Amino acid sequence: MTIIQQTKPNALIIGTGGVGVIAAYSLSFQNKCNVSAVVRSDYDYLTNSSGYNITSCDYGKVENWKPDNIYSSVEKASEAGIFFDYIAVTTKNIPDGPTPLDKIVEPIINSNIINWDHDLDRSTNIVLIQNGIDIEHQLDKFSIDRNTREKPSVCCISGVQLICSTRVGKCLIDHKSKDNIIIGPFDPKDKLANEKSHEFIDLYFNEGHNMAEFDKDVRYTRWRKLIYNATINPLTALAELDYSRCYEFGDKEKRSDSGYYSSTEQKILRPAMAEVMCIAKSEGYELQQSDIEFFLNETKYICYKPSMCVDAENNQLTELVVLLGNPLKIAKKNGVYTPLLEMLYNLMVIKQNTIKERRGLIKFDEKTCKVIA
Amino acid sequence: MTIIQQTKPNALIIGTGGVGVIAAYSLSFQNKCNVSAVVRSDYDYLTNSSGYNITSCDYGKVENWKPDNIYSSVEKASEAGIFFDYIAVTTKNIPDGPTPLDKIVEPIINSNIINWDHDLDRSTNIVLIQNGIDIEHQLDKFSIDRNTREKPSVCCISGVQLICSTRVGKCLIDHKSKDNIIIGPFDPKDKLANEKSHEFIDLYFNEGHNMAEFDKDVRYTRWRKLIYNATINPLTALAELDYSRCYEFGDKEKRSDSGYYSSTEQKILRPAMAEVMCIAKSEGYELQQSDIEFFLNETKYICYKPSMCVDAENNQLTELVVLLGNPLKIAKKNGVYTPLLEMLYNLMVIKQNTIKERRGLIKFDEKTCKVIA
Repeated sequence: MTIIQQTKPNALIIGTGGVGVIAAYSLSFQNKCNVSAVVRSDYDYLTNSSGYNITSCDYGKVENWKPDNIYSSVEKASEAGIFFDYIAVTTKNIPDGPTPLDKIVEPIINSNIINWDHDLDRSTNIVLIQNGIDIEHQLDKFSIDRNTREKPSVCCISGVQLICSTRVGKCLIDHKSKDNIIIGPFDPKDKLANEKSHEFIDLYFNEGHNMAEFDKDVRYTRWRKLIYNATINPLTALAELDYSRCYEFGDKEKRSDSGYYSSTEQKILRPAMAEVMCIAKSEGYELQQSDIEFFLNETKYICYKPSMCVDAENNQLTELVVLLGNPLKIAKKNGVYTPLLEMLYNLMVIKQNTIKERRGLIKFDEKTCKVIA
Repeated sequence: MTIIQQTKPNALIIGTGGVGVIAAYSLSFQNKCNVSAVVRSDYDYLTNSSGYNITSCDYGKVENWKPDNIYSSVEKASEAGIFFDYIAVTTKNIPDGPTPLDKIVEPIINSNIINWDHDLDRSTNIVLIQNGIDIEHQLDKFSIDRNTREKPSVCCISGVQLICSTRVGKCLIDHKSKDNIIIGPFDPKDKLANEKSHEFIDLYFNEGHNMAEFDKDVRYTRWRKLIYNATINPLTALAELDYSRCYEFGDKEKRSDSGYYSSTEQKILRPAMAEVMCIAKSEGYELQQSDIEFFLNETKYICYKPSMCVDAENNQLTELVVLLGNPLKIAKKNGVYTPLLEMLYNLMVIKQNTIKERRGLIKFDEKTCKVIA
């Protein structure tokens, strides 16, 4: 393999949907790093066309843009002879699916280690621009021997993003709300990850365009987002219905003012959100009642379908494990009582396996009525 | 209207699916009563053909059978000039649908009262061959002035049926498991209903063929059936999945023997069934743990879709109110804690309204995100 020496750091984006393409473009904007991308469904189209066409609230109309390098798979990227300093993962995080996170990044980590095996000043910095809690532990096996420093380190950086950006056609991106990303080490005590988080922000932040802020304790922000993602997300996925309808289709009870209570809010979402707060609290993270009000109302009147609902409707596996399964593991460990979240989870487990059956990932024998592996 | 005088009692069957046709045939078998039927989807076919063809485990092959009278609607039946002594209702019981029980039977009750207004020896005896609890109260308004005895009484009889009989084509009935019906007054203290229950059994029971037993306290049997109908029914409807898959698709946890626990059973169904037992107990009905085991296992390995699941899949309104809503009203009144049943109910309320929207029974305005009446 020809090893390409470069002076600028190399960033690889894995996952080029609406979020990934904006991330790639943001990193390339000031030309401070080389940007590569693993492109799946758009690969053939992209290589044979002049590039992405992006309508962006942050960058205006961007026509015919391409990353510096394009690969059809992580394996191909790992064979390119490039040390990828930053791997930004923007795929969905589905540990129970056929390509869990560790399998996705492993080829790149291995090629970094093999080809630069004694370049101990370099590290493979994996930026997980994904939702959910405890997602970084899927990469623990890569950092076990970090302190021995016999090969380039692997370090884990958290990215929590507020953005509305959608792939609306082949290489066609519609980016509607300001990219606002919060970056920081998963482990606040991890010096290297702290340092690399700041370096990544320097590459990503484009003044006057997007927002990229450092956060020394990202877990708080992750818990806060779970108020929405562990409750409204699975509810809408179970109902296969936008949140507005889920709300309006509840039993209604008149309030003392002219309004009414919906059972969806009063009997499912509020108590389930309170359970999320209790789990976070059991870890020392104090979420606010105002967060519940914010997430209850943010998308109530816009017929919005959260990602888990869209996935369920499209027979795609959902992020059930990281959005709801992992919080419940913490609840169990800490003795937090979470009957509603557990019910949502146990119902969603059935739905997730229904999707797995439809995708041929599991088989159900109707004669014995058993799942056959 | 010509008033037809008859010496035998008249029975009218409303609802001629698999269950209703067998009921009609059973009543006609010994020719002890005249049997009329309100036939909806099969009406044209039935009037232009030689009759029903029934393959029955109780009666063998029955070819070209017709009830004595056939009507296309209850209104038509009410104009026939017949006093219907027994109205056997075998439709689904959906109080929140367009044709609730009181509307279904009202034309017949009115015609009985108007045309025989001083025949105080006769009574309109309504036999509800339907599942659920507190269904008889939908008819309370008809029996308010029963004690004044100024017009023929209305009395309410409960029928709880164990049967497997399906309409498999136009006027084609496949009756697979022995008809076993338990008959009794909804109110054990109601002397007239007691007496009329026995009379109905005399008409319905055909020795050597079917089973028809008197039960002086039908509520126990209704509660017992709710162990299944308030839990497995809504679960499978929410998942739109047969019970076997719902069971097998749960998270599995190894047991000390070679088997495993399914989260569907351990975390949803067993606790929800225990809640049904607690509600029944709060009314003085002592269900047994063995009932739970029976219902958990009865249909576990036959890929069976309960009625609520079939209804949801076919965009038909489900019996949510009588199978789950009414039990929860009793729980609330008696202070019984039922978090899992409530969650199943509140999720099913969303599903029921989704079905209503699809059937045009409610309208949702996507601009305002409100249900418009």
